[in-house]
Amino acid sequence: MPSPLPPLLYTDTLVSADMLYFGRVEVHDPFVAFGARGKKYTVQGALEFGRVKKTGDFDVVLSREDWLDAARKQYGPQAGIAEMIACLARTHGQKAFRVADDFPAALYVKLTKLGLKLRFADGLLFPEREVKSAREAAAIREGNRLSAVGFSTAEKVLRAARIRGRNLIYRGKPLTSERLRFLIDVAIKEQGGEARDTIVAGGDQACDPHERGSGPLRPHELIIIDIFPRHVASGYYGDMTRTYLKGRPRQAQRRMVQTVYNAMRRAIRGIKAGIDGRGVHQGVVDYFKAEGYETKRGAGGATGFIHGTGHGLGLAVHDPGSRLGTVSSILRKGAVVTVEPGLYYPGLGGCRWEDVVQVTATGAKMLSRHPYNWEIR
Amino acid sequence: MPSPLPPLLYTDTLVSADMLYFGRVEVHDPFVAFGARGKKYTVQGALEFGRVKKTGDFDVVLSREDWLDAARKQYGPQAGIAEMIACLARTHGQKAFRVADDFPAALYVKLTKLGLKLRFADGLLFPEREVKSAREAAAIREGNRLSAVGFSTAEKVLRAARIRGRNLIYRGKPLTSERLRFLIDVAIKEQGGEARDTIVAGGDQACDPHERGSGPLRPHELIIIDIFPRHVASGYYGDMTRTYLKGRPRQAQRRMVQTVYNAMRRAIRGIKAGIDGRGVHQGVVDYFKAEGYETKRGAGGATGFIHGTGHGLGLAVHDPGSRLGTVSSILRKGAVVTVEPGLYYPGLGGCRWEDVVQVTATGAKMLSRHPYNWEIR
Repeated sequence: MPSPLPPLLYTDTLVSADMLYFGRVEVHDPFVAFGARGKKYTVQGALEFGRVKKTGDFDVVLSREDWLDAARKQYGPQAGIAEMIACLARTHGQKAFRVADDFPAALYVKLTKLGLKLRFADGLLFPEREVKSAREAAAIREGNRLSAVGFSTAEKVLRAARIRGRNLIYRGKPLTSERLRFLIDVAIKEQGGEARDTIVAGGDQACDPHERGSGPLRPHELIIIDIFPRHVASGYYGDMTRTYLKGRPRQAQRRMVQTVYNAMRRAIRGIKAGIDGRGVHQGVVDYFKAEGYETKRGAGGATGFIHGTGHGLGLAVHDPGSRLGTVSSILRKGAVVTVEPGLYYPGLGGCRWEDVVQVTATGAKMLSRHPYNWEIR
Repeated sequence: MPSPLPPLLYTDTLVSADMLYFGRVEVHDPFVAFGARGKKYTVQGALEFGRVKKTGDFDVVLSREDWLDAARKQYGPQAGIAEMIACLARTHGQKAFRVADDFPAALYVKLTKLGLKLRFADGLLFPEREVKSAREAAAIREGNRLSAVGFSTAEKVLRAARIRGRNLIYRGKPLTSERLRFLIDVAIKEQGGEARDTIVAGGDQACDPHERGSGPLRPHELIIIDIFPRHVASGYYGDMTRTYLKGRPRQAQRRMVQTVYNAMRRAIRGIKAGIDGRGVHQGVVDYFKAEGYETKRGAGGATGFIHGTGHGLGLAVHDPGSRLGTVSSILRKGAVVTVEPGLYYPGLGGCRWEDVVQVTATGAKMLSRHPYNWEIR
């Protein structure tokens, strides 16, 4: 089998986890990086040059000013990034590259006209990104530890809150989703994490899984808290969900929470390398159905189990590769996936549990750890 | 002049401010949006459908499940996003679209093969994004108010800190860049902002303008604080910089700080609609030179005035359009730009002042406001 073409990237690390994976250094404006003869190259302006050279993982850091000059000498004063890349490719003896499917189209067209051959990755630009090393797994564990810091904070606040009619009173004021999110995110920030869009959604709000939650939290209602912080030092994410109820649960709530928990445990037991993630997801679908929890999609929205069972996790919250959903996806040894079944019924509320595992030859290794105590009196 | 082609987008709002501008609703996974006959369309999966319909600015929200079904009926079971877009285009009588230069290339190639004509915006996908309405200007002002909250916090901490030899002691512990950044970011979060990568860099660290800063802050050294928070409710950013010194400045520090301040004021006075931003930037370059502050670029890095004078600000920290830099850019009435000259000399330290203005027919309207007191005893 011929070795794969070296990669060519033009993006920034805020947008592209591939770029962060390739160079291991954050740069917030688009830049060029490529492979040639087994080495990693990047082109940086004067402002980034020193930092990237010192802290990045590139073998060679080239000067953008110098290479733009070279391109202008050859192609004229209007020469830009495309012409610069053409010069670089020629100098480094590289006529063809593989590019991500979301490579910028205008640049793709220009480079093609300049004679470069670009082949789409048609999936992952770096297939090896799917398989996490021990070091990467440790960084994800650290991300999940930060999620757990958030849950501990939430539990402390919910325990301290007092039920007054339909409100939860915390330190003299009604406890809202916004306030609890603030306290969670600050606790995580204090420990070196960056939590964005943390979900703290109670009651029927939680039935829309992408609703962040707003307004007063109510007693005796299920509250979904989904925390996916970035561990700033490593760039890797954690992603965990716990469900809580402050007050006294009804029997139907209790049964739903237990059923979702059972579904998560069953899904985790079903994971190992070589298994199709679609089958794991279908197992959850079937289990919910067997337990009497129907999924329905109608004009007014969907109820029941209305999302996939899990996604990849790494340098992105939704990492590409192995997943547990409706699309076939053979689980690779070393891949890291979330396992997050949920049920959502307006009137009853929403419940989701989410842990993170690494796929092994024989099963799944837990990369997240936090208790499942959900009733808070 | 023929009216421009309607836009076609396939991206998410974490990555694309254009998409946020078009639909005014956050969606964190890639989705389709397009214009046809003066209306804005989007295609959303069941999970996002209700929220986007309720809170977004689209005229029509279509079901992804339904349209993928339609595409599969026509193109077979392998049909995906490209085939779905082809179906949508045909049904809505649209054979051609304009797309952003960074439209995903693999999708571009597929759509072209399916017979769609895609023309690159070759610059801004939405040229009108450059010109900010009164409402947008107010949102940017709010972003800058959040930056000012950060400066007030920093000043309070620096005032309270005690000088002990080479350290600043705050509440019993040496004050570090990390700790001050934490206190700034939390104060901003409490007020509805999200500050990421806030720069708190002292001494020679500040001479690399993209260095965030780490370790103990020192007395008698210049400290650059650059805060660019996102006002979460509106999605717009603020971006301001202040320079501080805790202790007693040397004469050379004092002179540099005053010179950079003068440069900012001169640049702001030079701004009005129709002016080339390159000239404003060149004016700063010339002024620094006349004052004896040379800019040098060498192998060991660059010193002096080593970045542009200002960039667009809006739904992105670096908004496209009008700017003050080395590239020609005619300032449009209503455009919002930062004005941020700086000087950087290892040994002496770095200084940057940054305010934000909206370009008017006759001058520049300030959208940021915070004192310039930089000496803290």
